[in-house]
Amino acid sequence: MSAFAAATTVRRRNDDTTSYDVDLDAGWSIGGKPNGGYLMAVLARAATDAAGRPHPLAVSGHFLRPPNGGQAEVRVEVVKTGRTVSTVRATLWQDDRPCLDSLVTAGELAGDPVDYAGVAAPELPSPEECRSRAEAPFRVELLDHVDVRLDPATAPFPQPNGRPLIRGWMRFHDGADADAMALALAVDAMPPTVFHLQRLGWAPTVELTFLLRGLPAPGWLSFEAVATLLADGWFDESATVWDSTGRMVAQSRQLALVGRG
Amino acid sequence: MSAFAAATTVRRRNDDTTSYDVDLDAGWSIGGKPNGGYLMAVLARAATDAAGRPHPLAVSGHFLRPPNGGQAEVRVEVVKTGRTVSTVRATLWQDDRPCLDSLVTAGELAGDPVDYAGVAAPELPSPEECRSRAEAPFRVELLDHVDVRLDPATAPFPQPNGRPLIRGWMRFHDGADADAMALALAVDAMPPTVFHLQRLGWAPTVELTFLLRGLPAPGWLSFEAVATLLADGWFDESATVWDSTGRMVAQSRQLALVGRG
Repeated sequence: MSAFAAATTVRRRNDDTTSYDVDLDAGWSIGGKPNGGYLMAVLARAATDAAGRPHPLAVSGHFLRPPNGGQAEVRVEVVKTGRTVSTVRATLWQDDRPCLDSLVTAGELAGDPVDYAGVAAPELPSPEECRSRAEAPFRVELLDHVDVRLDPATAPFPQPNGRPLIRGWMRFHDGADADAMALALAVDAMPPTVFHLQRLGWAPTVELTFLLRGLPAPGWLSFEAVATLLADGWFDESATVWDSTGRMVAQSRQLALVGRG
Repeated sequence: MSAFAAATTVRRRNDDTTSYDVDLDAGWSIGGKPNGGYLMAVLARAATDAAGRPHPLAVSGHFLRPPNGGQAEVRVEVVKTGRTVSTVRATLWQDDRPCLDSLVTAGELAGDPVDYAGVAAPELPSPEECRSRAEAPFRVELLDHVDVRLDPATAPFPQPNGRPLIRGWMRFHDGADADAMALALAVDAMPPTVFHLQRLGWAPTVELTFLLRGLPAPGWLSFEAVATLLADGWFDESATVWDSTGRMVAQSRQLALVGRG
């Protein structure tokens, strides 16, 4: 089993189909708190299991308080079972408090050819020519599992460049290929783009919506993340992920508070 | 009271702080079904009232089944009350069935100057030089209330152009200026961009997330909507709205099924 599959395993309680146990793995953290995309993947696993459908087509997460590594629970409620999709509410609880609430629309992607693609994968230097995110001057535990390579032209270190856009590659260190669930992590595994605007502190995500757009082919994922507005203490960040064949496979947008550090 | 304020009025039940009555106004429909953005605005009103905070900063709606005009109920659950924001689940019910489920993060925007804006309002012909959406060859009830003007270069009629991008202006016909709630409607008041790809049928939205980014100044709103991927029967559509001063005030992205018409 891959490290990602193990870290996101959810176990349905035998006597209760509305509750799943999960052992949150602090190895997938940033600054000691499990990464938001990792938590979204955990919720997506529980929600798709509860829905009986394989793919989390849309996951809208609203972040309430950051959990710690260790035991937690996902409570699910199947809101609607339809012909094409099912909708589930999935909430992560720890120590009797909700930490992350979500609505998940689950269904199945057939992997059909693309009808229209208006945004191509970015032109990037090879992964070997890129800069590892782990070279940043602070430790990110998540990077022990995810190999994130940044296009040097867009990396926020050693020098922010004033333009909140970051491009690069990513894959798992253990060689496992990304699946649909891993994409929920992938959209949140890059450095905050507002580092380029000199906002270097903790940037808590308040809301993150993930859309699964395709099933990834094996190999490196490429990504682009961009912020468009920083105002009233808030910024948006949109991420797009393509697979190794250049097919767009995931999109996300989040709303976050700017760092105060 | 403006037509929009009247059509989105929610009344808290005296004996139950978790339930609001609403009279859905079929005048804000497309093809006889209340517009999704209109329903999002109704939920945002109930959620912000329940939270005791004025602004719906992020509203993630998952669409279950389209309601009809007439009596409906919004059931709310305050999930977390924090220092900066509160999070509410708000669900629209009609005839004992949930129609639209949502999570809402509510807070307050101060209206501070913009720190960074990476996307400027589009250059558009004047509203008088644009084409009214109401000129399209099918009736949209919503347009009796919302005056939507399309940049002729991006209008999908009389001729789709193969590029799923639509720009234009909008305002209320009754002269009321848009407020924060009206922006939840504004992001969903333009024609589906996939009309440009010859998908002219009913395009049901499955998920729509709205972000409030600023408080709109009086006057015309300008907008841009764009789709980036059509695959496996699904397309995304992102909308951005600016106020008359050029400040970005709202963003949204939705996932929808392509029309089968």
